[in-house]
Amino acid sequence: MTNTLERKIKVENNPSIFPKNQWYVIALSKELKQNMIARKVLNIPLIIFRDEHGQVQALEDRCCHRGMPLSCGTLENGRVRCGYHGLLYDGTGQCVEVPGQDKIPSKAKVKAYTVVEKQGLVWLWYSFGQEIADIEPPDYPYHDHPDYLYDGDVYHYQAPYQLIHDNLMDLSHLAYVHLKTIGGNAKIHMNAEMKVTQNDDQVVVKRHMINSEPPPTYSMAYPFTGKIDRWQEIDFRVSHIRIWTGAINAGTDSLDNPDRDGFNMRGFHAITPETEDTCHYFWTMSTNPQIDRENIANVVIEQTRLTFDEDKVVIENQYKNLKQFENSEMVGIHIDVGLVRARRMVEQLI
Amino acid sequence: MTNTLERKIKVENNPSIFPKNQWYVIALSKELKQNMIARKVLNIPLIIFRDEHGQVQALEDRCCHRGMPLSCGTLENGRVRCGYHGLLYDGTGQCVEVPGQDKIPSKAKVKAYTVVEKQGLVWLWYSFGQEIADIEPPDYPYHDHPDYLYDGDVYHYQAPYQLIHDNLMDLSHLAYVHLKTIGGNAKIHMNAEMKVTQNDDQVVVKRHMINSEPPPTYSMAYPFTGKIDRWQEIDFRVSHIRIWTGAINAGTDSLDNPDRDGFNMRGFHAITPETEDTCHYFWTMSTNPQIDRENIANVVIEQTRLTFDEDKVVIENQYKNLKQFENSEMVGIHIDVGLVRARRMVEQLI
Amino acid sequence: MTNTLERKIKVENNPSIFPKNQWYVIALSKELKQNMIARKVLNIPLIIFRDEHGQVQALEDRCCHRGMPLSCGTLENGRVRCGYHGLLYDGTGQCVEVPGQDKIPSKAKVKAYTVVEKQGLVWLWYSFGQEIADIEPPDYPYHDHPDYLYDGDVYHYQAPYQLIHDNLMDLSHLAYVHLKTIGGNAKIHMNAEMKVTQNDDQVVVKRHMINSEPPPTYSMAYPFTGKIDRWQEIDFRVSHIRIWTGAINAGTDSLDNPDRDGFNMRGFHAITPETEDTCHYFWTMSTNPQIDRENIANVVIEQTRLTFDEDKVVIENQYKNLKQFENSEMVGIHIDVGLVRARRMVEQLI
Repeated sequence: MTNTLERKIKVENNPSIFPKNQWYVIALSKELKQNMIARKVLNIPLIIFRDEHGQVQALEDRCCHRGMPLSCGTLENGRVRCGYHGLLYDGTGQCVEVPGQDKIPSKAKVKAYTVVEKQGLVWLWYSFGQEIADIEPPDYPYHDHPDYLYDGDVYHYQAPYQLIHDNLMDLSHLAYVHLKTIGGNAKIHMNAEMKVTQNDDQVVVKRHMINSEPPPTYSMAYPFTGKIDRWQEIDFRVSHIRIWTGAINAGTDSLDNPDRDGFNMRGFHAITPETEDTCHYFWTMSTNPQIDRENIANVVIEQTRLTFDEDKVVIENQYKNLKQFENSEMVGIHIDVGLVRARRMVEQLI
Repeated sequence: MTNTLERKIKVENNPSIFPKNQWYVIALSKELKQNMIARKVLNIPLIIFRDEHGQVQALEDRCCHRGMPLSCGTLENGRVRCGYHGLLYDGTGQCVEVPGQDKIPSKAKVKAYTVVEKQGLVWLWYSFGQEIADIEPPDYPYHDHPDYLYDGDVYHYQAPYQLIHDNLMDLSHLAYVHLKTIGGNAKIHMNAEMKVTQNDDQVVVKRHMINSEPPPTYSMAYPFTGKIDRWQEIDFRVSHIRIWTGAINAGTDSLDNPDRDGFNMRGFHAITPETEDTCHYFWTMSTNPQIDRENIANVVIEQTRLTFDEDKVVIENQYKNLKQFENSEMVGIHIDVGLVRARRMVEQLI
Repeated sequence: MTNTLERKIKVENNPSIFPKNQWYVIALSKELKQNMIARKVLNIPLIIFRDEHGQVQALEDRCCHRGMPLSCGTLENGRVRCGYHGLLYDGTGQCVEVPGQDKIPSKAKVKAYTVVEKQGLVWLWYSFGQEIADIEPPDYPYHDHPDYLYDGDVYHYQAPYQLIHDNLMDLSHLAYVHLKTIGGNAKIHMNAEMKVTQNDDQVVVKRHMINSEPPPTYSMAYPFTGKIDRWQEIDFRVSHIRIWTGAINAGTDSLDNPDRDGFNMRGFHAITPETEDTCHYFWTMSTNPQIDRENIANVVIEQTRLTFDEDKVVIENQYKNLKQFENSEMVGIHIDVGLVRARRMVEQLI
């Protein structure tokens, strides 16, 4: 935990305190209907809305006239009317009407951000120096894959984004935090075989639990015939983490075959800083049940939600305590390999 | 919007961050009966009460012994008894009794402020350098005028006083903020002819709407015979704003005749800083209904209250946003003339 | 009241902003059963619990691994299990288990504090430089004395500990603050004969009220035959204050005889800083009723509780006001002798 002073110096020397030149999730498509969302991300207060073409736009949440939040105004056919003196903006941030005045001042516009909607996710390009996105937003095929059903939500955290990274990079906490839901036997979780690999953009942690008993949800979802080979694959990228868990009938395939069969739960976890101390956590869970598809998919979503509720309590308590003990060291243990590498990758992009 | 650092430097170099050598409203007479009011104004925590002669007094809200708020004590026949060890103060701030001790220490007194009650308003002289008020508190004849009935209230704002000035200096916001009450047609409001004049102590904005339909409240209050000529006159002074609106039968008189007839609504708006970031807003509304006087006067008060409730939401949201975007510029439009001049006048007195 | 800057300089030059090398009460024995208490004292967040031998232990409330509050974990047979990844600590702060890992890192421990449970009170040694306590925790015989019955509680104050000292060193506030309970006649309280003495570790204030009417509670508790001689003895020590009040039949003994008879109320008041601005107030009241012992003892406890509820309101209001008027002087009066000496004694130990 960097102390306050070091953090302040960092902010002064380099205005990007978050990994820069990245795509970040700022909304789920399903959040955006006839409404505006007011949401601060990466220290930028935004309004997010669909313009007259249905295209998602993100503008600075501030009327250029007297500073009112545009989110206190109204959306008029895909354009935003300020609720104070009625200035009207289009999706590019250009003021297109000043009531009672013919000429629109040349400065009358607000900052617009590059956003792309893709596969049910709204991504924003967070640039520093490099205004134009030279890469595509990440591809996430499980949101439009015929075998999969998915749903998700967005949680607001009173904790910085990296504490959620830490939590997800080490699933051994399941045994202690999630006793009531997906916890299971502590020893098995803590002792599972673990392999960590890395390339320029990813840290991957794989854990295999060969020849296990299928948990009840798994048996409900898939016609397993006996014991199963289970896996957890955590695929860390700077703006989000993909966690693939699942199982096949024991011994029927290699757990290194990327196209292996079986019951699959594919978690998508996009953690976008709100401020230095808070963040938004966008998550979805995609599953491929073979039996009673809709119903099983919903059960998994509900269990995921309960689990994430528990994580939120833990992580927010952890953060309060870290602030109390700002200068204390942390002692590393075996399970920290993944999180240490993820933190190093983030550090290099700030 | 001055940024935080500049404001801090200003405070250090000059302790008056508010327009100085002015009379400010600190209470409505009707608030003061057998009670003390604890109210911070101009960064000074005060108790305001009537002494044994019924005269309003304002003392620093702090017992000189151990610093207890005097407002936690009791008013005993116009003198204030501290609720901790029983020291008793008169209306001049002099300690007149220390229980259990014959001699009263010479330093045992608290600061008293110059206050004058006049026409239902309690004014405090806020001096810097110039301790003695060399001018009278403003005269406001509509609070004791036989043709007028009035009432009012005090609102606490989580916003600095100048944002309320801005709001009142430009009534074109009516069309967007007050749709539910006095809003009316946006185009008419925004396009009304406007004239701004100024002298040493006042900025006056006049708007005329000739040959209009009388709004329902107007028709209820006054026997108009057909179309009407309406006016809005905003008379800004540093410590308060007078807004005179009304109408006469169309074409029957000049709207520049100060003694013109018709239905009159005279709003009094005294905005007194509490701190740099907060303020008290004392308002009254005086009307001269010709028909069903009491009832119409009450209707107008109630509509005024609803309108001011809406303004409070807008202005507090605006202020939260200005703090988020501290270094952003504002783009001026046509309706800003009055507020720009009012801000300039305030700036010269700080 | 030292101003903020002076306080900050003091903190930088000397990390002990509280009287050092002292025993402080951190809990009442009755608070500790099968539970952990999370309590910050002297700026140290602690967990307080009984180990497997029933002995009270106090550890830093922070898992050495990822900083989780240990108080969010569970107590397992007198050892503490972190609720995040399951590290287990014994009462000395040593980590004795890291789930899934055989070797325990040598740094895996948390800071333990010296605590002693004695006569229903849990004391912590607050050292600076001098890590080993070279004196015993204070002796308080009235918690295990056959003549006495006692009970008590702990109150959290939004005010610094010394404002409670001030309050207790001067019981003349009874007449104004405690009108509803033990107040009584203001003049008698303020005019009682008062004697202040002092040695290295104590400031003692004695007040005698000879030949008074017995108050109702006194008559209920003890077979007084007529008028009584009453006393108040306030015995200030840096970490706590003992207040002995009571009465004998008038003229039957000297009020300087330490073994005098009569009805006795012995208040124990341990005020332990939580932070610079807040504190914990542990209090007990021991009485020796001769009649209807249990019932009278309970009545006295209840009256004490009501009285202390009133003090809390007063002192927290006082503190809020002192912060508003940070640079104002205080004017001394006759009753301040005790508190001035107590403050001087505290100052010398910081």
